Amino acid sequence: MTDSEHPGTMMTSSRESEKEFLSKVFDLILKEGVEKQLNGDCKVVNFKHPEELLKTFDFKLQDDPETTERLLELCQDTYDYSVKTGHPQFFNTNFNGQDTFGLAGAMISDSLNTSQYTFDNAPVFTLMEHEVLGKIRDLCGFESGDGILTPGGTLANLFAVNLARYRINPDFRKQGIYGSKPMKIFVSDQSHYSFVKGAVFMGIGTDNLVVIPTDDRGKMIPEKLEEAIILVKEQGHIPLMVAATCGSTVLASYDPLEPIADICERHGDIWLHVDAAWGGGAMMTRKYRHLLKGIHRVKSLTWCLHKMMGVPFQCTSFVVNGNKDLMTKCHAANAEYLFQPDKFYDVSYDTGDKTLQCGRRVDIFKLWLMWKAKGNKGFDAETTHKFDMARSLADLIKNTEGFQLVQEPECTNVCFWYIPECLRGQEQNADYFKRLSKVAPQVKEAMTLEGTMLLTFQPNEVKSHVNFFKVGIGSARVKDENLAFILEEIQRLGKDIKV
Amino acid sequence: MTDSEHPGTMMTSSRESEKEFLSKVFDLILKEGVEKQLNGDCKVVNFKHPEELLKTFDFKLQDDPETTERLLELCQDTYDYSVKTGHPQFFNTNFNGQDTFGLAGAMISDSLNTSQYTFDNAPVFTLMEHEVLGKIRDLCGFESGDGILTPGGTLANLFAVNLARYRINPDFRKQGIYGSKPMKIFVSDQSHYSFVKGAVFMGIGTDNLVVIPTDDRGKMIPEKLEEAIILVKEQGHIPLMVAATCGSTVLASYDPLEPIADICERHGDIWLHVDAAWGGGAMMTRKYRHLLKGIHRVKSLTWCLHKMMGVPFQCTSFVVNGNKDLMTKCHAANAEYLFQPDKFYDVSYDTGDKTLQCGRRVDIFKLWLMWKAKGNKGFDAETTHKFDMARSLADLIKNTEGFQLVQEPECTNVCFWYIPECLRGQEQNADYFKRLSKVAPQVKEAMTLEGTMLLTFQPNEVKSHVNFFKVGIGSARVKDENLAFILEEIQRLGKDIKV
Repeated sequence: MTDSEHPGTMMTSSRESEKEFLSKVFDLILKEGVEKQLNGDCKVVNFKHPEELLKTFDFKLQDDPETTERLLELCQDTYDYSVKTGHPQFFNTNFNGQDTFGLAGAMISDSLNTSQYTFDNAPVFTLMEHEVLGKIRDLCGFESGDGILTPGGTLANLFAVNLARYRINPDFRKQGIYGSKPMKIFVSDQSHYSFVKGAVFMGIGTDNLVVIPTDDRGKMIPEKLEEAIILVKEQGHIPLMVAATCGSTVLASYDPLEPIADICERHGDIWLHVDAAWGGGAMMTRKYRHLLKGIHRVKSLTWCLHKMMGVPFQCTSFVVNGNKDLMTKCHAANAEYLFQPDKFYDVSYDTGDKTLQCGRRVDIFKLWLMWKAKGNKGFDAETTHKFDMARSLADLIKNTEGFQLVQEPECTNVCFWYIPECLRGQEQNADYFKRLSKVAPQVKEAMTLEGTMLLTFQPNEVKSHVNFFKVGIGSARVKDENLAFILEEIQRLGKDIKV
Repeated sequence: MTDSEHPGTMMTSSRESEKEFLSKVFDLILKEGVEKQLNGDCKVVNFKHPEELLKTFDFKLQDDPETTERLLELCQDTYDYSVKTGHPQFFNTNFNGQDTFGLAGAMISDSLNTSQYTFDNAPVFTLMEHEVLGKIRDLCGFESGDGILTPGGTLANLFAVNLARYRINPDFRKQGIYGSKPMKIFVSDQSHYSFVKGAVFMGIGTDNLVVIPTDDRGKMIPEKLEEAIILVKEQGHIPLMVAATCGSTVLASYDPLEPIADICERHGDIWLHVDAAWGGGAMMTRKYRHLLKGIHRVKSLTWCLHKMMGVPFQCTSFVVNGNKDLMTKCHAANAEYLFQPDKFYDVSYDTGDKTLQCGRRVDIFKLWLMWKAKGNKGFDAETTHKFDMARSLADLIKNTEGFQLVQEPECTNVCFWYIPECLRGQEQNADYFKRLSKVAPQVKEAMTLEGTMLLTFQPNEVKSHVNFFKVGIGSARVKDENLAFILEEIQRLGKDIKV
């Protein structure tokens, strides 16, 4: 074995061989990660069961290094057996498509490999974050405030809980919440599960999540919220926070912010947070921003830009309305090895202590570069297109035999059932729905094994909806032909299903 | 304006223009992000104060899109004014250097843009994580267990707290901790601040962090730990967890695991967690793994592979010793839209519900590809080199006039003072130390403004150490000449300092 064959360690490789390897990787990315994927010149996935994949793919880590040729083969294998989320027929998650400018930004960030806690480590990215968070607060109509990017919507939602808790009693920071009355968090029955996980993690307990019913479109019912708050107050418990949802995970419903904000004000200025992880994108559009009417009245907002806005994963913003010092007071640990007061520059630009994390990835650059590339106008046009495409898909579903909408879409999610021939015209009794619940899993299995398309399915037990399909449109690349293919393919795969 | 000049939106751009843009970005990355940076053919940073940078750099987001030519200029500007963490003279954080295989892996992950919660979304990455976490548990000598990658060491440490809390009382999950006796977390006075932030976030309170003194090398004193546990038990409080540190953030001290494990066993099987975020790398080496002697006896471990192992940021592993179902039981929310039981494959490979996050970045591929490229042998050689280089630097410091070690390094951090001529031979009284504390900030300012080198400084108040320099060696590219330059440059910049 010579060093040039096995240049895997920094100490034996030459700069030239490293550059050559990277150049070959760039070629591979352009071919397999961009062109083939976006053109749909490949399956969405070449699915293998875990046991099969373990036999097909060389996962094992060993004592000896691999050659660079072998490493390139392994990278090729990685593409071959991975899911192509940029493929035109990938709709399996709440993000799809691939943005060229976002991808470029992600890769440039990778090459700089900076941790974004202090200005002196990440000067450019600090000021980009400053600019973007300011823009987001402007979109919300907040006159002042604070904010940070977080690794995903869950943490952003939990930051809001921590701020709300600190605001009602700063002593919790030191003493913990042991002696406190139970603190209640009000969410709708369509809210994201991060509040369940967070209630455990933050010591609050899932019993203290008060789940408010929604109407038939999945929107929190304000009157029910008010009743629940009154009851909690009568019990002597603390109404800590109302977390409204704008774009719920499955039905993509928008809770009505104005009446909810009225209730929060009426009952002692309860912290109103909005989880707009999915639906926040509507703010970028002139046509759909009315869905978040009242957003200027909330105290904090979660918005995952890696979802509807198509920024490469992860890119979540958390912004606070007013309350300028709260994040710092609530989260800061003042670690002397990072946040030295005797630095020579304006340390108010050191953002790391506002958040829970120590090291923090640069998630801002890919978003900022996309925003520069598109401008407000481009983001408006792209996002409007996504909403419009969802409407088109809903119309197509309504006009195609064997398909049935779960409800009219408000956002860019479209939820629907496929009714195979064996079920059409049958009486819709318990047996019917039991059989219908088996359809989506079977069609999903067939599409996964053929690799022609991917979309997800789920039940919605709160609404007594058995398994249905969900298409979430997060890519501006989606065209009418991609929507038509969804229905054609389900028909082809599901026509002969017997349930 | 024509579309080809402003191809920023997916709806107006052609695949060809996007490919052309990406190709130009690849050229830029290879030149500015790799070659120039690694060769040191540039300043470590071209520092500007925030106000200056705001004038120099075009951060503003506007209505209209920029041309692709302008976007490439902005990318060039981003390189020009960013810190080059791959530069041979960058030692400002606990990671440095740039690994070619890690960078390749990061970029390939970017192009696939997958969220790693379920097997069907990330089949290859799921099995890679399975393999790597198994290897890490093997290194620790755990016979069975569980694990996950997390976005940084803070969350990994807090996962351990959550598991420890759930283990003593699963009812906390539902009821919260309101009625509980205070839960105490024992950490050394050199431990990472994540426990402070976590105590607030998890409702435990910073008053319930019991800080155990360390010896003169920064290691937790087992006798003091045992006294503290006995006191807590006498007070009727709950000794929840001992968090040992292996490679503390500043002095990089290793707590003695064997006697600490004995104490945890003796006092009712207290959850022993190890924060080896920085020092875990020693496990990869034959020469230094003795530093973590007793690691097989801990219940959980945090290890940031993006630090000493040089994986691109972020890549943190959290592993649990035995207790196979605990992570799932403690963290799971069983969201029906993601973790459908009626999928057609073995859903035990869906890892997402073990963790707090919903969407989860693919952090595994870059690590896995590096491990393939280097093999265990390569990682051993590289990591040993880093430890050896730290020893060389310490020797150099001892043998150079005007420099003084804070203490002999055990790990790859070297902490030292520079004593400028105006202080040499002076009586070491309060005034001396007050003046000495001003040296590092002044030299740091000078090196930042010249951009020749970056290393950090901090005081260590617990040890009554005034501001000293810290070099953390996280790159296997570091050579003797880079170490020599550190001292030469501090001498040049600090020679005439008057404090």
